[in-house]
Amino acid sequence: MNPRLFFSLIAASLLLAAFAHYLTENEIFQFVTASIAIVVLAAWLGKATESVAHYAGDRIGGFLNATFGNAAELIISFFLVREGLFDMVKASITGAIIGNMLLVLGLSVLLGGIKYKEQKFNAKLAGHNASLMTLAIAALFIPAIFMRELPPVKIETLSIVIAVVLIIAYLLWLVFSMVTHSDFLADLDPQESEPVWSKGVSILMLALSTVFVAIVSEWLVHGVEHLSSSFGWSDLFVGAFVIAIIGNAAEHSAAVLLALKGRIGGSVEIAIGSSLQIALFVAPTLVLVSLLIGRPMDFVFTPFELAAIAAGSLITISITRDGATNWFEGMLLLTVYIILGTAFFFV
Amino acid sequence: MNPRLFFSLIAASLLLAAFAHYLTENEIFQFVTASIAIVVLAAWLGKATESVAHYAGDRIGGFLNATFGNAAELIISFFLVREGLFDMVKASITGAIIGNMLLVLGLSVLLGGIKYKEQKFNAKLAGHNASLMTLAIAALFIPAIFMRELPPVKIETLSIVIAVVLIIAYLLWLVFSMVTHSDFLADLDPQESEPVWSKGVSILMLALSTVFVAIVSEWLVHGVEHLSSSFGWSDLFVGAFVIAIIGNAAEHSAAVLLALKGRIGGSVEIAIGSSLQIALFVAPTLVLVSLLIGRPMDFVFTPFELAAIAAGSLITISITRDGATNWFEGMLLLTVYIILGTAFFFV
Amino acid sequence: MNPRLFFSLIAASLLLAAFAHYLTENEIFQFVTASIAIVVLAAWLGKATESVAHYAGDRIGGFLNATFGNAAELIISFFLVREGLFDMVKASITGAIIGNMLLVLGLSVLLGGIKYKEQKFNAKLAGHNASLMTLAIAALFIPAIFMRELPPVKIETLSIVIAVVLIIAYLLWLVFSMVTHSDFLADLDPQESEPVWSKGVSILMLALSTVFVAIVSEWLVHGVEHLSSSFGWSDLFVGAFVIAIIGNAAEHSAAVLLALKGRIGGSVEIAIGSSLQIALFVAPTLVLVSLLIGRPMDFVFTPFELAAIAAGSLITISITRDGATNWFEGMLLLTVYIILGTAFFFV
Repeated sequence: MNPRLFFSLIAASLLLAAFAHYLTENEIFQFVTASIAIVVLAAWLGKATESVAHYAGDRIGGFLNATFGNAAELIISFFLVREGLFDMVKASITGAIIGNMLLVLGLSVLLGGIKYKEQKFNAKLAGHNASLMTLAIAALFIPAIFMRELPPVKIETLSIVIAVVLIIAYLLWLVFSMVTHSDFLADLDPQESEPVWSKGVSILMLALSTVFVAIVSEWLVHGVEHLSSSFGWSDLFVGAFVIAIIGNAAEHSAAVLLALKGRIGGSVEIAIGSSLQIALFVAPTLVLVSLLIGRPMDFVFTPFELAAIAAGSLITISITRDGATNWFEGMLLLTVYIILGTAFFFV
Repeated sequence: MNPRLFFSLIAASLLLAAFAHYLTENEIFQFVTASIAIVVLAAWLGKATESVAHYAGDRIGGFLNATFGNAAELIISFFLVREGLFDMVKASITGAIIGNMLLVLGLSVLLGGIKYKEQKFNAKLAGHNASLMTLAIAALFIPAIFMRELPPVKIETLSIVIAVVLIIAYLLWLVFSMVTHSDFLADLDPQESEPVWSKGVSILMLALSTVFVAIVSEWLVHGVEHLSSSFGWSDLFVGAFVIAIIGNAAEHSAAVLLALKGRIGGSVEIAIGSSLQIALFVAPTLVLVSLLIGRPMDFVFTPFELAAIAAGSLITISITRDGATNWFEGMLLLTVYIILGTAFFFV
Repeated sequence: MNPRLFFSLIAASLLLAAFAHYLTENEIFQFVTASIAIVVLAAWLGKATESVAHYAGDRIGGFLNATFGNAAELIISFFLVREGLFDMVKASITGAIIGNMLLVLGLSVLLGGIKYKEQKFNAKLAGHNASLMTLAIAALFIPAIFMRELPPVKIETLSIVIAVVLIIAYLLWLVFSMVTHSDFLADLDPQESEPVWSKGVSILMLALSTVFVAIVSEWLVHGVEHLSSSFGWSDLFVGAFVIAIIGNAAEHSAAVLLALKGRIGGSVEIAIGSSLQIALFVAPTLVLVSLLIGRPMDFVFTPFELAAIAAGSLITISITRDGATNWFEGMLLLTVYIILGTAFFFV
């Protein structure tokens, strides 16, 4: 598309959404305009990610995309923690984890798989992702199992220890994957796409587009919350599915675009990388921050949330472990997402 | 064996079992004659499967065998659902799933492994089987976990959604494995056995022998139920082990015969394919049918049944994932089956 | 080091620890001298294992090391069973299983991984280890799940059946791995280290050093128990972590030394082999022995112990399945160990 036309479209949709958000009271109007802006912004962000991936490889491009995408998640969750809305924080963490693994990755694998019979990526990366997911599952289940017999004060201390240990593990993972063993986890067929912008402009575009996505996501979430109350949906469902789906718009567009270009390794990095970042970095950071601001949140998730994360992780590990994907595997991921979504909807 | 002698033997054993079933009251006599007929029929069915597999490859031969074998399962279960005997339906579903994965596959791998040091099959097929099993486990666990807090009417709706989703997933699996990616999952060393009959006759023989196995299985089950009450066995044990072992006679003979011919890929297809068909097609179909006939059955299994299916699936996934088997792995499958059988026996 | 100096050092540290144990009452002094002796003995044992592995290959060397190491475990546990201290027996079994898988293997993989970028071992061995671990998990979970509805006498019978089945499975594993398929599971790069002693002397040294480690471990455990009461640690934590760490000193030194020599296959054999031996042989033997001496112990572990064993096994299976290790994977194993240790500490 003509670049000038493209940016005019972005500006127009942003202005319209901002107008609806700040100057009108009509929630349906706010919701519709924010949705349009998100779609346009997502296209921009997809292009920026693709361009950064051209220069940096799928892994670092994917990591940057996951980080920018989760920055919004972290900020929104921080405000929820400050309000003491711990249940909604945990629901949205759960939703973001399974949304990335099942919906984002599922759509990428399905749509990429309709175009290509089989897409391959680095199986070593898949193996390490599986180990990190197993660590995340263990870290989430242990407090829930031990809390039956522990007093709240000990659960809090246990939560802090687990939070610190996970953050250290995540930082060491960055050292491992980007410094000491970056060649081990490299893409199978890097840099085949055409660059859209120069290196510096690409990074700037990635940062800018993500910031706008984050801002408009919040407007959209705001509108959705009002809509949900009129539909009579539960907080758990809204937190874990509606907010998570919209909050993952960035990951969606970028991951699906890469899959359609035959670069499923980048999609895996974005989707699973984002899930792992939330479980191993965003969630523990929220636990520690909650302590600092004097509203301590523990690391104990509900059995429903644990079941959803375990089911999502198991099917994702099973599907990605061989370093190859096809349309049926994307369909399987989406199937588990639909089952979980239905179950949460009824709670 | 001389074909004429072979068919005379089948006819004689069938007539004897029919005589015992319809014209005598002696349950021990009924049980013994039906058992003899099953053994003879199983040999027939084994030959028919082998012959079909010669023309169609292990995968389609295995699928046909699994389907014919489970037709009996489906018919028997339908009558149990109509009687409202939901607990026995679920017990026999559980028994059929773990019986195929642990006993049928375990015996095939053990006996084949005594003859051949290592038998290989398509590892891609093993990977997809593992993913489908993971889906089945998730689909069975989710309702059980969520039912604690949901009212019965919502559990029923959730059960229907899961049933529909699983049936769609299973049909798409057939499209994937037989249409779009049949070459991916092809046998490693197809068509090495000698054909017994022509293509058309082979299929006819497969259908005929399965129908007879199904009929006599029902006579046998009938006899066993009476025997069980005199031995004082629980319904759960009879449903999950005795009925399942006899009901799987077809799979047993065909799978073990293929393994002894060095075609373990066909055994895996029959055993795991049959388990998956029960979990992803037979069980959900029963849920939907139960609704149609006005006796709604939900998708909630007991913790014992879930534990048995999870344990059986995990060891089967672990053993098959590398696409190679040996006698020790067959022994491991049988070990888990013995542990589960003992546990169910004591309930 | 000069051999004469080395053995003088061993003799001196042993005499000092014996003096402290038998002739003084000062528990701190006993603890410190026993610790010094353990460190010196561990070096001896490491050399002996290395030398035996030179002649026998990593697998048999690892098996001998695991067996000698667990002999102490079995003897100590036997005395605890005789006293009826079943909870402490199960805690120390749990601790030994996860200590070997997470701490011993974790340190070996981490330290070996700092020296070598990637260390490889036989992936077939990893696959079989994973299947055996899955069997162990199933065998430990089944009684715990079924016990809710079974009377104690049936749980006892179920425990006996499981114990017998596991011992048979373990003995068949030895037949498989050392007789029928020893070439399948062979080391990738055997016999590269220099022999320290002749074959006969190596085995004698291995036996002697293990016996001394066992004796001094018991002295140390004795001292630790007194120390623990003054620190106010729970029995569960002392049994599962303090005793287990000290009781695994033999495995530690031998496994880490092999990893530093680039022979991670030997470390895996020692660490995972030892865990499997405890779960599949030592624990069931204790159940049967408890019956013989008239103080029947069942096979029912607490939810905490089951969670710890499941979490430890899952991460170990995930990390070893590809037959290659690096420093980050060692760190992951240690991370799970720290999380579990903290949780047990607070109970």
